[in-house]
Amino acid sequence: MRENVVVIGAVALGPKAACRYKRLNPEGQVIMLDRGNRISYGGCGIPYYVSGDVSDADELQSTSFHMVRDVPFFRDIKAVEARTRSEALGIDRAGKTVRVKNLDTGGEYDLPYDKLVIATGSTPRRLPIPGANLPGVHTVADLDAAVAIRKGLTEGAVGKAVVVGAGFIGLEMAVALADMWGIETTVVEYAPSVLPTVLSPALAAMAQRHMEGKDVSFRLGAQVARIEGEDKARRVVVKTASGEETIEADLVILSVGVTPNSELAKAAGLEVSPRGGIVVNEAMATSDPCIFAGGDCSEIRNLVTGGSFFLPLGSLANRQGRVIGDNLAGLDSRFEGAAGAWCVKLFEQSASGVGLTLEAARRAGFDAVSILVSQFDRAHFYPDKEFMYLELVAERGTRRVLGVQGVCGQGDALVGRIGAVSALMPGKPTTRDLSVLELPYSPPFNSAMDILNVLGNVGDNVLSGRNASIDPFEFDALFDARDAGETFFLDCREGPSAEPLLKAYPGAWHNIPQGQLARRLSEVPRDKKVVLVCNSGARSYEAFVILAHAGFTNVFNVAGGMSSLTNAGVDPKL
Amino acid sequence: MRENVVVIGAVALGPKAACRYKRLNPEGQVIMLDRGNRISYGGCGIPYYVSGDVSDADELQSTSFHMVRDVPFFRDIKAVEARTRSEALGIDRAGKTVRVKNLDTGGEYDLPYDKLVIATGSTPRRLPIPGANLPGVHTVADLDAAVAIRKGLTEGAVGKAVVVGAGFIGLEMAVALADMWGIETTVVEYAPSVLPTVLSPALAAMAQRHMEGKDVSFRLGAQVARIEGEDKARRVVVKTASGEETIEADLVILSVGVTPNSELAKAAGLEVSPRGGIVVNEAMATSDPCIFAGGDCSEIRNLVTGGSFFLPLGSLANRQGRVIGDNLAGLDSRFEGAAGAWCVKLFEQSASGVGLTLEAARRAGFDAVSILVSQFDRAHFYPDKEFMYLELVAERGTRRVLGVQGVCGQGDALVGRIGAVSALMPGKPTTRDLSVLELPYSPPFNSAMDILNVLGNVGDNVLSGRNASIDPFEFDALFDARDAGETFFLDCREGPSAEPLLKAYPGAWHNIPQGQLARRLSEVPRDKKVVLVCNSGARSYEAFVILAHAGFTNVFNVAGGMSSLTNAGVDPKL
Repeated sequence: MRENVVVIGAVALGPKAACRYKRLNPEGQVIMLDRGNRISYGGCGIPYYVSGDVSDADELQSTSFHMVRDVPFFRDIKAVEARTRSEALGIDRAGKTVRVKNLDTGGEYDLPYDKLVIATGSTPRRLPIPGANLPGVHTVADLDAAVAIRKGLTEGAVGKAVVVGAGFIGLEMAVALADMWGIETTVVEYAPSVLPTVLSPALAAMAQRHMEGKDVSFRLGAQVARIEGEDKARRVVVKTASGEETIEADLVILSVGVTPNSELAKAAGLEVSPRGGIVVNEAMATSDPCIFAGGDCSEIRNLVTGGSFFLPLGSLANRQGRVIGDNLAGLDSRFEGAAGAWCVKLFEQSASGVGLTLEAARRAGFDAVSILVSQFDRAHFYPDKEFMYLELVAERGTRRVLGVQGVCGQGDALVGRIGAVSALMPGKPTTRDLSVLELPYSPPFNSAMDILNVLGNVGDNVLSGRNASIDPFEFDALFDARDAGETFFLDCREGPSAEPLLKAYPGAWHNIPQGQLARRLSEVPRDKKVVLVCNSGARSYEAFVILAHAGFTNVFNVAGGMSSLTNAGVDPKL
Repeated sequence: MRENVVVIGAVALGPKAACRYKRLNPEGQVIMLDRGNRISYGGCGIPYYVSGDVSDADELQSTSFHMVRDVPFFRDIKAVEARTRSEALGIDRAGKTVRVKNLDTGGEYDLPYDKLVIATGSTPRRLPIPGANLPGVHTVADLDAAVAIRKGLTEGAVGKAVVVGAGFIGLEMAVALADMWGIETTVVEYAPSVLPTVLSPALAAMAQRHMEGKDVSFRLGAQVARIEGEDKARRVVVKTASGEETIEADLVILSVGVTPNSELAKAAGLEVSPRGGIVVNEAMATSDPCIFAGGDCSEIRNLVTGGSFFLPLGSLANRQGRVIGDNLAGLDSRFEGAAGAWCVKLFEQSASGVGLTLEAARRAGFDAVSILVSQFDRAHFYPDKEFMYLELVAERGTRRVLGVQGVCGQGDALVGRIGAVSALMPGKPTTRDLSVLELPYSPPFNSAMDILNVLGNVGDNVLSGRNASIDPFEFDALFDARDAGETFFLDCREGPSAEPLLKAYPGAWHNIPQGQLARRLSEVPRDKKVVLVCNSGARSYEAFVILAHAGFTNVFNVAGGMSSLTNAGVDPKL
């Protein structure tokens, strides 16, 4: 069918929608507009270009086999006309035209469309503070911005850097600066922990400690008041609970979130959410059935909460782009939403998750609990193995899995587990689905009872009242208050493991190996809170069962055991 | 509730069921019987013990924190009584007793039960051939057998070995012998390819070639006729299409499958399938509601075919054990079945899969097709990356995903993908579920369009008639017959990539870069089969669309492109 399709924006979703449509309907004519010079590039690769892992910016704009996706590429290979340096100024929905400005010539013209795709992406937020626009203060806006940042690095002009924002991009940029360029890097974050929207405080502490071990500094719970400085030296002034502090920096990177580019849609009278995302239905159509939108400029349905949310990820943009391509060509494709799967590599640790954290779940109105589990990522007898920490967020009553997040040194192993949970999420899984989840099994890859099965089992036990756990920070608070004598800390490991702590905390730390507990019940006080600790949480659960059977009711396991306390940095110090 | 539970078999499912039950019902009394000395060990770890990766056999019988799971362990830690060297001779269902023989004293007694669990496992098959019981000919029956094999290795008595059977255990044993001990190892397999029940010939060829590169030899399509030899030297006589061959060996390992140990159940009148597996329902109860069975001695439901199958894996045994423990204690737990997920590490390559291969799907009556896709396992611009090969098996019409199998150097990355598909399998996914599957995304872990999304998209295109592909061996057959002139081989890559083959096969190999194809259509014959080749299959798909639009109907892509041809060893040689 001969038809004019215009696509505004040519970075991720735009090209995908354009090319899919063109393959389905070779008769169609597609014109793809972009303000920038560079199109169809992997913006998520920017931190790896800044680090130098990716040597040339062109690689982010290339196919797997090194063809640069530029205007001639789209013309010759994809039969799609791309117009760079071409800004869409407005949409005339009645006349079905887009007003386009050629940014090189200044000339304007009207481009007719039968169907229109808005793929305008998002813009990094700039903080409304003095100095946010000083030279040397960057956002990670696009590949050109990345080229400018790396230029400064290669010229050796940067000895110290401040990254504002401890989200994905902020942390990835901090890793890039500290790891590959040896730059003294400080991350400033308003929230009290890193990755605050996607990780619990306990898991966040594990990730943060690993980065600190690689010489990245953190200022958490810290607000940037202003950025000052003359010549090339910047001073970042931050306010914390303990006062004002000035951090010197040759480079400041602001990564405090992005805002959907929905002005064009709004001006055209399309429905836009209060948060600024273009509203689309499952066909990715806007409130005008001839206009589609997707990627970073739109909102999508959250499969966990049922509401809508803003999740700017290249992976989702690509999937949505194909759906739009289908629907432009008259197929009936649907994008039902997302549960919010993510992952990030931080030096030799990785973090990943899907769905809601405990805090997010409670904010969304769920009566939720979280359960932390630690286990080796492969068979415990296999030579190369690492501890994996997974946290389950589940709803009481229904036992619905609302989210799973984790941290592990073996990133692929962690991401694989989260991927399996993510695959379950559209079906609204319960802890039971995790308990019986079938995963490929062999000792080099997992345990016979995979950590996901264990997570489901522990979740099931906790939600059934057969187990009760506290997280590392809850333990820490109780242990800090140990002199009040209200909590009985019982180490369930064998004697030699418990001995150092017994000596360090006489009277406060107790030891009954779990195998002896049933016959030594009289040593456990019935009028105190009992906190059980072992290595990983498995034996303390056995101890919990024994105490519960003996009528103890105020008993708690330390989830993930000593290993999680140590990794979160809140183990009792010797 | 006071109740006697007897568990026959104490390796994997038995201990799991016993301990779960005991935790749920501490009043219950559990006696666990086993013929052997060693109990509760990870039999799947045997190849890693034989290789020396696991230094001591006790490690396979230990918890993560080095406690050996022996009789005192079960008594003290789990409050379960384990009786080793105790064979169950018979079950009196009317009297509810088990006849037990103490293998040390020879004494016999009746053990009463209220509920009984049969967890008798499986026994490796011995080939019905002369010499199968000669000294130096081993099966991988249990940990004691493994200790005997490794003893021979450490004593330096083995220079050459033959492994009969190219299934999981056979290949893992071959890796153990060749990799860690430098033993000249030959694998003999009756089927024409390795891992014949779980991998397609193309993927199997990739795995085999990798192992050959590590000095493992293969005799495929070869039947062992007899094993001969005097003293310690064995001669394995195999028959192939080309005649009889004798392979010398100091060690022969038979790994030709296992048989469920269901004699006890059968003698007690419990329902046993024609294949010998104990029949159980979703509660894992046998035809006698007081008797449960699971693990290697039973059959379970195949979630893909709907029939029952035999899948002896420690991972499933553990999950089933928990279900049995629940049901013993009066909870209502279900094990619905399995789709058959598996993985195996072969030197630096791994293979993994779930569900049916094309051959198995057709045998099960599905009108199935398979589609091979290759793509980097992470962002193509990320420094460390490897090609991953995935094969989708899907049903025509319904587009149901019947299975996915793959091969990759990054095992965790591959197993993660298969795990995500496995999580989908109970929901009977279609190719569309793969297309929109949400996975955690970041360049160090995957592409914005993950290979699973691509697999779904290509599957969708093929099943919609928008793409048609041939696998590496189909290409090989066509290319072998190239002198007949019936097939036009069209390389769609840029000139420099195609040039070596153009020179090597003048007149047979052709090159039109895909970007020029639309204006060079006249060079493509309309009366021949056209076979399109590029690097990975992506550009040849673009070429396919162009040819289809121009009215060509007899066109096929080489699935996975040159990379899959090369990896399967069937690329046109220069």
